[in-house]
Amino acid sequence: MPTEPTPELLALDWGTSSLRAFLMAAGAVLQTRQSTQGIQHLPAPGAEGFEQALEQIGGDWLRRWPGLPVMAGGMVGSAQGWREAAYAECPADLGRLAAGAVRLRCRLGSEVTIAPGVLYAPAAAPPDVMRGEEVQIAGALLGQPGWAARSRIVLPGTHSKWVEVREGRIERFATFMTGEMFALLRRHSILGRSMAPDAAPDTAAFERGLEAARRSRPGEFLHQIFEVRSLGLVGRLTPAAQPEYLSGLLIGHELAAGLGATDEAAPLLLIGDPALCRRYAVALRWFDSGECTLLDNTAPAGLWALAQAARVG
Amino acid sequence: MPTEPTPELLALDWGTSSLRAFLMAAGAVLQTRQSTQGIQHLPAPGAEGFEQALEQIGGDWLRRWPGLPVMAGGMVGSAQGWREAAYAECPADLGRLAAGAVRLRCRLGSEVTIAPGVLYAPAAAPPDVMRGEEVQIAGALLGQPGWAARSRIVLPGTHSKWVEVREGRIERFATFMTGEMFALLRRHSILGRSMAPDAAPDTAAFERGLEAARRSRPGEFLHQIFEVRSLGLVGRLTPAAQPEYLSGLLIGHELAAGLGATDEAAPLLLIGDPALCRRYAVALRWFDSGECTLLDNTAPAGLWALAQAARVG
Repeated sequence: MPTEPTPELLALDWGTSSLRAFLMAAGAVLQTRQSTQGIQHLPAPGAEGFEQALEQIGGDWLRRWPGLPVMAGGMVGSAQGWREAAYAECPADLGRLAAGAVRLRCRLGSEVTIAPGVLYAPAAAPPDVMRGEEVQIAGALLGQPGWAARSRIVLPGTHSKWVEVREGRIERFATFMTGEMFALLRRHSILGRSMAPDAAPDTAAFERGLEAARRSRPGEFLHQIFEVRSLGLVGRLTPAAQPEYLSGLLIGHELAAGLGATDEAAPLLLIGDPALCRRYAVALRWFDSGECTLLDNTAPAGLWALAQAARVG
Repeated sequence: MPTEPTPELLALDWGTSSLRAFLMAAGAVLQTRQSTQGIQHLPAPGAEGFEQALEQIGGDWLRRWPGLPVMAGGMVGSAQGWREAAYAECPADLGRLAAGAVRLRCRLGSEVTIAPGVLYAPAAAPPDVMRGEEVQIAGALLGQPGWAARSRIVLPGTHSKWVEVREGRIERFATFMTGEMFALLRRHSILGRSMAPDAAPDTAAFERGLEAARRSRPGEFLHQIFEVRSLGLVGRLTPAAQPEYLSGLLIGHELAAGLGATDEAAPLLLIGDPALCRRYAVALRWFDSGECTLLDNTAPAGLWALAQAARVG
């Protein structure tokens, strides 16, 4: 029977609506756990809520291996988090992220290191912020010198990020409210009223939306989304096809801006939920973008890399 | 004591959330009444609700002047209305609108004529629809041969319309979900969380939003709205200024598309709520558009013109 390696790190990906815990040794994940106790769904207010959520998801591990260090990233470091870790400014490499981490000791005795987010604040343009994605990015670049040298990383989601990486640093990035906009329009707007509640995937309708976005002129977004309704009213878009068309329209707008503003010769990585990344890969092909690489959960590797850089443990 | 003219028409502007009644003679309004009994807020379901709402707002008039004809426009003619009046297709003049009107007799004995909406359905592009705005347009053009010959009419609101008029006809138009988008983002999105609840007007913040929209590239909408949050996080946009900045961003996107797609030599009319029209006038100046003319409620004149064309009464 092989000896089980002794855990060296408890890595926490702690977002707004979920908490994922990874027991790790030598950069590898030994065990994974998940809970819904994101920072907006904690069992108690304030620091007490974070203590309890940590104990519920990994208290047995911290008792079995006393002093096991904890490395946490995501919204846990925001102003609404356990302890605020101020944004590290672009260009941000692993060293700068590690330098911006904050530390506290939890009730079970372990030191908890919390990663900062990243701020892009050029003098002449509006700023942008991320918190949690920088961990995924660190994980994607780990052991990949080609991507670290130069890449574009897209993290689709509620607030999609388009990130330019150069020489191991996050150079600049832009956020798109694509996922939140889809949910808003479907749940709360007039467009949702005519949509079928449980629509099957419909690539043709998705691509029609992409094509409309690809041909759009400046300012047309607020007109084009209404077309979901008007196409439906004249029978040119079925209730079942309307969510897919809208998804294509929104993702297409994101791609038009994202591809237009980034270095098209740099490799393009997609990180996130696999089904959503596949949807983006279809969209990227529609926009005649080159090859892209899909990566699933790179957070554990990123938290490991951050812990090393921050000399955690 | 001057003789009061005998009413010739009861004109109804019957929308989703409100009902306005105008007692008219010789094209002039004698009395105005308003209720909240729009087609989504009727006192009873089905036709009964429309009958009751009409009796509550104008039953005394219809009893005093038996057989007084009623001319109604707006959502009252939609599939969810009292009786559906199918869309009249562009190019739509007064005669085509009148030909598309439907008639019924209400319980109090008057004939009720309901105006159709307008459909723009080019072969090669997505369609668009309006219902209610065509009445406002008919009113604006009445007795204005210059505007009827050639004009652009903008009706700001929940679903703003940009309309091109040629030779007395609605040639084409486009809808923008500007007002609904502002309400959605303020009430239901992450952007609303950092906004001050009761912000005073702030023209400088509004113009900053307009300028950001004016400089936007295709697809940037979903990124630019997130800037409301990121500018706030770094202290470059106060909570009180955020709604005004967002309003400028949204109206600016609408103007960028609307001005880009319409004949800039044609006179531009703004019809609607006076405060909202003034806001659009500020925005049009920021976009270096020429003069515009602000018109308030042109619905009674439009309903009168439609009644004449439809030989009501």
